[in-house]
Amino acid sequence: MHNTQVQLAKQPEGNPKTSDFQVVKADVAKLSDGQFLARNIYLSLDPYMRGAIAGRHMGHQRLNQGDVIYGRCLAEVMESKHPGYKAGENIVIESGWQEYYVSGGEADDEIRKVDATLAPLAANLGVLGMPGLTAWAGVEKLANPALGSTFVVTAAAGPVGGTAGQLAKIKGCRAVGIAGSDKKCRLVVNEYGFDACVNYKNKNWTDELKAACPNGIDTYFDNVGGPVLDAVTQQLNLYGKVIMCGLVSQYNRASDSPGHGHNLGVFVGKRAQLLGLVVYDYYARFGEYLKAAAPLLKAGRLKFHDDRVEGIDKAPEHFVKLMNGLNTGKALVAVGPEKL
Amino acid sequence: MHNTQVQLAKQPEGNPKTSDFQVVKADVAKLSDGQFLARNIYLSLDPYMRGAIAGRHMGHQRLNQGDVIYGRCLAEVMESKHPGYKAGENIVIESGWQEYYVSGGEADDEIRKVDATLAPLAANLGVLGMPGLTAWAGVEKLANPALGSTFVVTAAAGPVGGTAGQLAKIKGCRAVGIAGSDKKCRLVVNEYGFDACVNYKNKNWTDELKAACPNGIDTYFDNVGGPVLDAVTQQLNLYGKVIMCGLVSQYNRASDSPGHGHNLGVFVGKRAQLLGLVVYDYYARFGEYLKAAAPLLKAGRLKFHDDRVEGIDKAPEHFVKLMNGLNTGKALVAVGPEKL
Repeated sequence: MHNTQVQLAKQPEGNPKTSDFQVVKADVAKLSDGQFLARNIYLSLDPYMRGAIAGRHMGHQRLNQGDVIYGRCLAEVMESKHPGYKAGENIVIESGWQEYYVSGGEADDEIRKVDATLAPLAANLGVLGMPGLTAWAGVEKLANPALGSTFVVTAAAGPVGGTAGQLAKIKGCRAVGIAGSDKKCRLVVNEYGFDACVNYKNKNWTDELKAACPNGIDTYFDNVGGPVLDAVTQQLNLYGKVIMCGLVSQYNRASDSPGHGHNLGVFVGKRAQLLGLVVYDYYARFGEYLKAAAPLLKAGRLKFHDDRVEGIDKAPEHFVKLMNGLNTGKALVAVGPEKL
Repeated sequence: MHNTQVQLAKQPEGNPKTSDFQVVKADVAKLSDGQFLARNIYLSLDPYMRGAIAGRHMGHQRLNQGDVIYGRCLAEVMESKHPGYKAGENIVIESGWQEYYVSGGEADDEIRKVDATLAPLAANLGVLGMPGLTAWAGVEKLANPALGSTFVVTAAAGPVGGTAGQLAKIKGCRAVGIAGSDKKCRLVVNEYGFDACVNYKNKNWTDELKAACPNGIDTYFDNVGGPVLDAVTQQLNLYGKVIMCGLVSQYNRASDSPGHGHNLGVFVGKRAQLLGLVVYDYYARFGEYLKAAAPLLKAGRLKFHDDRVEGIDKAPEHFVKLMNGLNTGKALVAVGPEKL
């Protein structure tokens, strides 16, 4: 059986290019006892992968030429010689940019079994997956925004930002998004139901943000860092919170660049709280999140939007788009059919 | 009656110089109804004044040539036409770098009456004053460091850092100071009783800090910011807290300099909490602090160390020393005798 893989051709410098990747055909190894064969259905593309490829993301070794690219997939167990997994089960697994993956079981791969009745399968990589858990942890466990307070989030069209703003809104906040295109902003307001969304590529975007946040900003869920963080901070209220979730603006930087520096004086004067968020801390509480989110999803109060392409060979192009901020919604690759 | 004042001669550029100040003799105004005359006994010199002079510190207008320099003093009410103040009372008052001050009462001047039996009068500007309250707020209200955890503080010989480390030690922490000279470090260890103190001017100071903090750093009470913060952060434990209290390393910067930038990525990975501290928020709780600290002071468990000069005309020289890190302990000017 053939297995189409996407491997590293060479380490990206700055913004990744499709030529940094190579698509190859490999064979699928035979199963040994204690192993199972997973068939990837959806591959999740996420900004953290840029750092993982370069060895800058926790728990990920820098990739070498010929290594399969890191990636979390919604997969189906095809065949199993492992007592914990049965053929036909759906799982989320760190199985990489490829069609098939032989797993030795949970210890290796952070596998999570998926209840296929909760939501469309692909949602388990976005709103009900790691991005959704990230949003929930930041909103519910770190920020705990007050009723009637103003909650601002960047990358608001994406699955982390989009879910975070919706959860804050459901908790009684004014939710204001920041995103990089008018198309994204329309998604954020019209589909996700935020109160407002500002396109930070507009020249007067900070004035627009001020107009959208007449009472100032109480919580800023930051996915981007850099100059946008500096600008938003100017509008942060006294005792405001900044959830430091991601620094997408810094992920494409050259390996020898120190990255954008932030002056901390403004945070002292505002008595701000800056809280670092790493989603891996919350994996043990996935069940708690699903209990809160799945009913909201079923009831149509929590929305999601996929931006998908078909075929594993399209993954590099779609990832390059993501890292240039050109996709809208959750970036996915449909690797194979949901059912064979 | 003559009143010797220290006024601004010109706005300092970078490190302040004595020539930025001018000593002049003025007259004391006659009292109107609702006013009282304060005689300054001790003037407190604090790093925040550098920013206040330049209009960079909250609530302080930028000073012009001829303005009396901002300053908090331990004073005695000499004569009063204000119903709230009686001759002979000791107060802490924002009365400036001068011998006498006519006050209109609390609304103008953030006046605090002092119990002269609690401690030596000068202590009300240091360990039992605003610096002590700052330390207490950071340790007790923001950091709340765990028993057995490691607590690191910069400017450890000064009244904020010295008190913070002692309070943390009394709460069962390992207290490690960072200071700018071996003399300061001896004060910190031998008088204040810290477990260790590192001179950050030593070439291998980060190795020395590592040796002094074998279990890493759980709480970092930061008074300096800049490259020292960057270096300490490398040794911060997961879930560590940074109390952002001051940025002394940045106070002398030129007005057109953006200051030192900090990369926030490291704080995300460490799930750090950065908490901004402004002591003014805690003035309403001064009594709570004194209730905790005064008995410790009386029992000899909480120590302080003054670095004083005699005469208001010596204030500029002593302030320049302070802003160059050349004083040891709480910088004070003895303006007049405790009792006439």
